[in-house]
Amino acid sequence: MSDVCKIGLLGRGTVGGAFAGLVAERADAIAALTGKRPEIAGLLTRSEGDFQQILAESDVIVELIGGIEPAREYVAAALAAGKPVITANKALLSTHGEELYASANGSGAQLMFEAAVAGVIPAIRVIEESLAGAHVERVHGIVNGTTNYILTEMARNGLSYDDALRQAQDLGYAEADPTADVGGGDAAAKMAILARLAFGVSVTLEQVAYEGIESLTADDISYAKEFDLVLKLVGTAERINGGVSVRVFPAFLYPSHPLASVHGSFNAVTVESPAITEITMSGPGAGGIQTASAVLGDLVSILSGVPRNRPPAAPADIVTDIESAFYLHLEVEDRPGVLAEVAAKLGDYGVSVRSFNQQELGEGARLVMVMHRTPEKGFFAAVGEIAGLPFIKAEPRVIRVIEEEFTD
Amino acid sequence: MSDVCKIGLLGRGTVGGAFAGLVAERADAIAALTGKRPEIAGLLTRSEGDFQQILAESDVIVELIGGIEPAREYVAAALAAGKPVITANKALLSTHGEELYASANGSGAQLMFEAAVAGVIPAIRVIEESLAGAHVERVHGIVNGTTNYILTEMARNGLSYDDALRQAQDLGYAEADPTADVGGGDAAAKMAILARLAFGVSVTLEQVAYEGIESLTADDISYAKEFDLVLKLVGTAERINGGVSVRVFPAFLYPSHPLASVHGSFNAVTVESPAITEITMSGPGAGGIQTASAVLGDLVSILSGVPRNRPPAAPADIVTDIESAFYLHLEVEDRPGVLAEVAAKLGDYGVSVRSFNQQELGEGARLVMVMHRTPEKGFFAAVGEIAGLPFIKAEPRVIRVIEEEFTD
Repeated sequence: MSDVCKIGLLGRGTVGGAFAGLVAERADAIAALTGKRPEIAGLLTRSEGDFQQILAESDVIVELIGGIEPAREYVAAALAAGKPVITANKALLSTHGEELYASANGSGAQLMFEAAVAGVIPAIRVIEESLAGAHVERVHGIVNGTTNYILTEMARNGLSYDDALRQAQDLGYAEADPTADVGGGDAAAKMAILARLAFGVSVTLEQVAYEGIESLTADDISYAKEFDLVLKLVGTAERINGGVSVRVFPAFLYPSHPLASVHGSFNAVTVESPAITEITMSGPGAGGIQTASAVLGDLVSILSGVPRNRPPAAPADIVTDIESAFYLHLEVEDRPGVLAEVAAKLGDYGVSVRSFNQQELGEGARLVMVMHRTPEKGFFAAVGEIAGLPFIKAEPRVIRVIEEEFTD
Repeated sequence: MSDVCKIGLLGRGTVGGAFAGLVAERADAIAALTGKRPEIAGLLTRSEGDFQQILAESDVIVELIGGIEPAREYVAAALAAGKPVITANKALLSTHGEELYASANGSGAQLMFEAAVAGVIPAIRVIEESLAGAHVERVHGIVNGTTNYILTEMARNGLSYDDALRQAQDLGYAEADPTADVGGGDAAAKMAILARLAFGVSVTLEQVAYEGIESLTADDISYAKEFDLVLKLVGTAERINGGVSVRVFPAFLYPSHPLASVHGSFNAVTVESPAITEITMSGPGAGGIQTASAVLGDLVSILSGVPRNRPPAAPADIVTDIESAFYLHLEVEDRPGVLAEVAAKLGDYGVSVRSFNQQELGEGARLVMVMHRTPEKGFFAAVGEIAGLPFIKAEPRVIRVIEEEFTD
């Protein structure tokens, strides 16, 4: 007869309910594999359960409450008591991760959180185990399914942002208050967590520069099709000149980029390292059963004794002076010399044009340009000056471009 | 000061040399992470070294000789002596895996082999750890980079099979004797290993039905473009009616399938399970440094104490009576009633046509049909009868179709 592993479950929302179901369904298989049969032995919700009692009676704590407090207090208490913890709480880990990792190190209790980032994709495990001995240079991710769904619908069906958001809400892909998703904050938290693990330096949410997708238009997507570009909300964590940069921005990708073909509510993460070149992982973003499945994977790891060793990390040296390639869209008067003046301003700041397209409109012209990589500060200064030119008829639209084209 | 982990390296080919270089390069980082500094302490090649002495003096054995003997003897001896082993040897694991897993279980030594399957893609780790608690239904893989390169070149540039093979050889993607790759045997060995881990039943190479790509023509690829189909050498391992089927065949994919966009020498593996839906992983196939990097990942896991628990597995119940969808290409005389007769034969065996296309040729017609899933035996019987019809001018061409279209 196998031992029982008593799980203290904090929270019983969509994920918590799905997790309890999965534990019951897979208990036999897990017992056969690990020698320990998991069972939900205690449940804490807003209206029932006592945390101290649950902690005392549990072998593992699964935190699915979300938010910072009281989740932080519970996770910290469990780790301090030497109890392994599984959490899917990206807000908590991206703000208090370092203190929790230290607490886990101190007591020797495992802290696992595969479900906090990128749905069913085992990005954490691959970075912490497969690539533990590698030097990771960069992580790119589509780590928010809601925004990827909205952008996919805008691209496929020409929907406006508002219509695509409403459709996502109707289908349950977006919440009634979608701010965390569409504003980029959710993706930023996940990229902070990935950056900490990939680079071994402390990165918190407040160090991540991010923008969301609220101001994107169907026109942005359709004009860029002429350049064969696909619009995604991309998180980037990379080493630059001895420091790191972690950021989330809408970005155009060339079709050969591994993230360009990730559609709908799917997530994907690409990890680049000199020795491996790159690994791309994709799969469904958050969903109750998918997230619960990632939590279950962590449980099996704990029961199997998979170690998690996260040495203390120094604060990251955040590099803000970065280079990007850009897409620039201008509405201009249709008269001679316009292109020359715009090109001259760009040239003044050392910005090099990769390709451009000019189209007549009814009363003017639309000028769409794609630039090569250039320091962001110089580019924004150039655009500031261009915006003030007398023939410019609307606010210039600027979107970053991820320039790498993968060949295989 | 950290302890030293002495590595006994068996074999110094491309991968062995790259691995030795990576160990030297990453020794400090690995020591910081695991507390143990790896160093190559013994080397066995055809001309130098003594295995028994190396075994006695090493903490870990890394087997990169390839082939069955003496690799089997060395790996078995190391495991019996309680020494952890890392191997990239798919031939060995797909034929003697079960006895080696048992030996590792018996002595408690870890046996790791991420590099044996799918290049840098951590397919083994994801199946054994992330999905250990899940019920895996099916694994699809493009697990041979040579054949994927050849098929990609045939599709992109209209090359014949022979020309594409020659190009692959010139670029070092194919060996002088390409049989193991182009005949499907290499992919079959890898699928046997994946099936054993995914389903927990013993599967050996001789239980895998496989075909290669040698008889494919540029015409097969170009005709199928009318149906928007992409040709790949696909390995499939799946549960069917309480048994399993493991097979490798050229197969057409619809463009929305996650493997359809895997080009060149890249590999990819898709794992399907009800709770996760699917995870797809892709990256470079075998290359010296990439394979060495996977070996290094296994080394870090051993030094970190990541357990590998592979309970004894019963022999698989191999299901041979399977269903597939098919593409059928016929050269026929261009006269009335031909299509009706072909359709009647298919109907006799319960085969349902999904779509078809007929084109006039100079002196006849080309009939290309795609069928829905149907029992293979019935379909082949129908094709046998069709081949004997008087208006058939050439041997019918049959290629399987993977019918699933993923929506996201």
